[in-house]
Amino acid sequence: MDDEYKRDVAEALTRIGKNMVDMLRQGMIPKLKIPSRSTGNIVYSDQHRCFVLGNKRMVRSAGNVRHIKKLAQLLRVAYFCKNDLVLPDKHATLRELYYISESWGDLLKFDDQTESDAMLEDLEALSGYPREDMRVTPEDKGSIYGDLVVEYKDPKGVTRRVNCLDTPDGLNVGPRLDEAKIVECNASRVIAIETGGMYDRLVEERAFEKFDCILMHLGGQSSRSARKMLKKLSSEHEIPVYLFTDADPWGMHIAMVIISGSAKAAHINRKLAVPDAEWIGVTASDIIRYKLRTDKLSDRDIRRIQELMKDPRYQEDRWRKELEIWIKIRRKAEQQALAKYGLSYVVDEYLPRKFREIGA
Amino acid sequence: MDDEYKRDVAEALTRIGKNMVDMLRQGMIPKLKIPSRSTGNIVYSDQHRCFVLGNKRMVRSAGNVRHIKKLAQLLRVAYFCKNDLVLPDKHATLRELYYISESWGDLLKFDDQTESDAMLEDLEALSGYPREDMRVTPEDKGSIYGDLVVEYKDPKGVTRRVNCLDTPDGLNVGPRLDEAKIVECNASRVIAIETGGMYDRLVEERAFEKFDCILMHLGGQSSRSARKMLKKLSSEHEIPVYLFTDADPWGMHIAMVIISGSAKAAHINRKLAVPDAEWIGVTASDIIRYKLRTDKLSDRDIRRIQELMKDPRYQEDRWRKELEIWIKIRRKAEQQALAKYGLSYVVDEYLPRKFREIGA
Repeated sequence: MDDEYKRDVAEALTRIGKNMVDMLRQGMIPKLKIPSRSTGNIVYSDQHRCFVLGNKRMVRSAGNVRHIKKLAQLLRVAYFCKNDLVLPDKHATLRELYYISESWGDLLKFDDQTESDAMLEDLEALSGYPREDMRVTPEDKGSIYGDLVVEYKDPKGVTRRVNCLDTPDGLNVGPRLDEAKIVECNASRVIAIETGGMYDRLVEERAFEKFDCILMHLGGQSSRSARKMLKKLSSEHEIPVYLFTDADPWGMHIAMVIISGSAKAAHINRKLAVPDAEWIGVTASDIIRYKLRTDKLSDRDIRRIQELMKDPRYQEDRWRKELEIWIKIRRKAEQQALAKYGLSYVVDEYLPRKFREIGA
Repeated sequence: MDDEYKRDVAEALTRIGKNMVDMLRQGMIPKLKIPSRSTGNIVYSDQHRCFVLGNKRMVRSAGNVRHIKKLAQLLRVAYFCKNDLVLPDKHATLRELYYISESWGDLLKFDDQTESDAMLEDLEALSGYPREDMRVTPEDKGSIYGDLVVEYKDPKGVTRRVNCLDTPDGLNVGPRLDEAKIVECNASRVIAIETGGMYDRLVEERAFEKFDCILMHLGGQSSRSARKMLKKLSSEHEIPVYLFTDADPWGMHIAMVIISGSAKAAHINRKLAVPDAEWIGVTASDIIRYKLRTDKLSDRDIRRIQELMKDPRYQEDRWRKELEIWIKIRRKAEQQALAKYGLSYVVDEYLPRKFREIGA
């Protein structure tokens, strides 16, 4: 994160408090208007190709006794993020934030982490910055491998560079990589992979050479850091992103959330969604085409498919078709099921055919 | 993994098949004697300070129609590990092994992954080598940071070196790091940490400088790779290992498994256990001493404590005392609860005091 961006974040947090002071000075009762994150205010934006918040706002007023505690907590959290995290280049986890609030006294402390988490979401919606930019640490999850040079600040504050290719199993994705700048990317695509087993397979089979690509391990549902990294590669560096998951509704939805964001994060999707990313498989159709070994869909899987059928993001034919196949065959398969044709089949046959078919 | 070690592993696998051929040549019905992994054959070894297998063996004979399938599968797996993995320097996950068996025909293929997993454990017990040495990939989990130089073979087969300190958030622990050689370790201790949040905290607070240590993120129950890395650091490099977990029975047991192995892996504990490692906290006593914010122990937590009370590894006073405190206070706490005293408290106060108390 460069200094200018850091100043912008700090300023956005300052502005929240400043507005309150201004209202007090003008003899008004201070209040905040926070974009509403309720389902009624989540709309799909064709322009941004992801869910965004509508125009509804909720008011938190110092004149309402039921609002005062939350209003004060929000200001305290904003103050903490600015002064204890952003300015001194420190980080805290969501969990630490909850514990730290204990030192804020009985009025301000959070009784439960769900309260402090929701407060961070309010702050995201108010400031327009994802919590990682306010230095609330994302989850350590996933890794990245390939010819990609990143510039980061080490814990001593020294600016350093590293090429992901110069590590045995890739770089661990954590808070410093999250803020790193991509200074060089000598690859023509990115493959983001759901499971560690398939990621290891693609590293070992030198997919990074064969497809001239960056490999990213998501570790299941992708973390904010992974999504931000994919966004940077796609938007700033114009590198096509391909998503490679298990052949079940959960895997497909991992891809969907990367592409068009989650409803829950509608207030921040524009900074995270990668609308140009493509889901290449393993699709429901692939289960039939490659005669993969399958497991029966559980009741939970089927309920999930029924939910997705109603989801506005799944109304396009190519997505619906896959959902319908699952309902018909009632079976799911894993990425690693391709190993029935040999360990290198995925790199020698499956992926080249996929890339040919989508013209990539 | 150096070439000599690789030859040893290949030879141990060859020997299994050779013995069978020898028996056939001598006109005997071929059979295998596999160390029994049943609970009745698991004993605590004072010499090795971990659970090991006793002398009971189970026989799998080609003369018994109920044994033939498993015997043939075991030989097929040993053949696969030697010829398709160890010799060509390839890896496969447990899951891939299960899928690969589909190409072995209806007699040999596994109906369920539990079968192929158990077969690998038989092979471990027979050969004396952990499955990672037979190139069945360990789980990608955890990361490592600090002044530690490892030498590894990259996917092209080129020998390379990297210092864990030269990465933003540490090296991801995967199959290549698992086989890496430690060529330089400029630290006087290792701290292995249960949660990612606390690992990030210790990296950010520069614990690696303040305590001259390597930091390792376990990601919950430690993976085989993490245990092997700790073992190498402890046995080959004589660096003291300290374990830092949540203050609940699960956290304490993460430490116990690292120290004295698991009953389930008794056949291979001698290669994995780190008997000199020390659990430094967060202990049940710390909950009281530091007045940490707690959660109520769940019924499942309490059942777990009752199980551990009967476990031979928990009969020493210092372990029992902690179990008894939990039973008394009925509360548990997380590592990150220390944040109530500020983000750097764990590095400025908590850990220095711990190290003083144990004379480290």
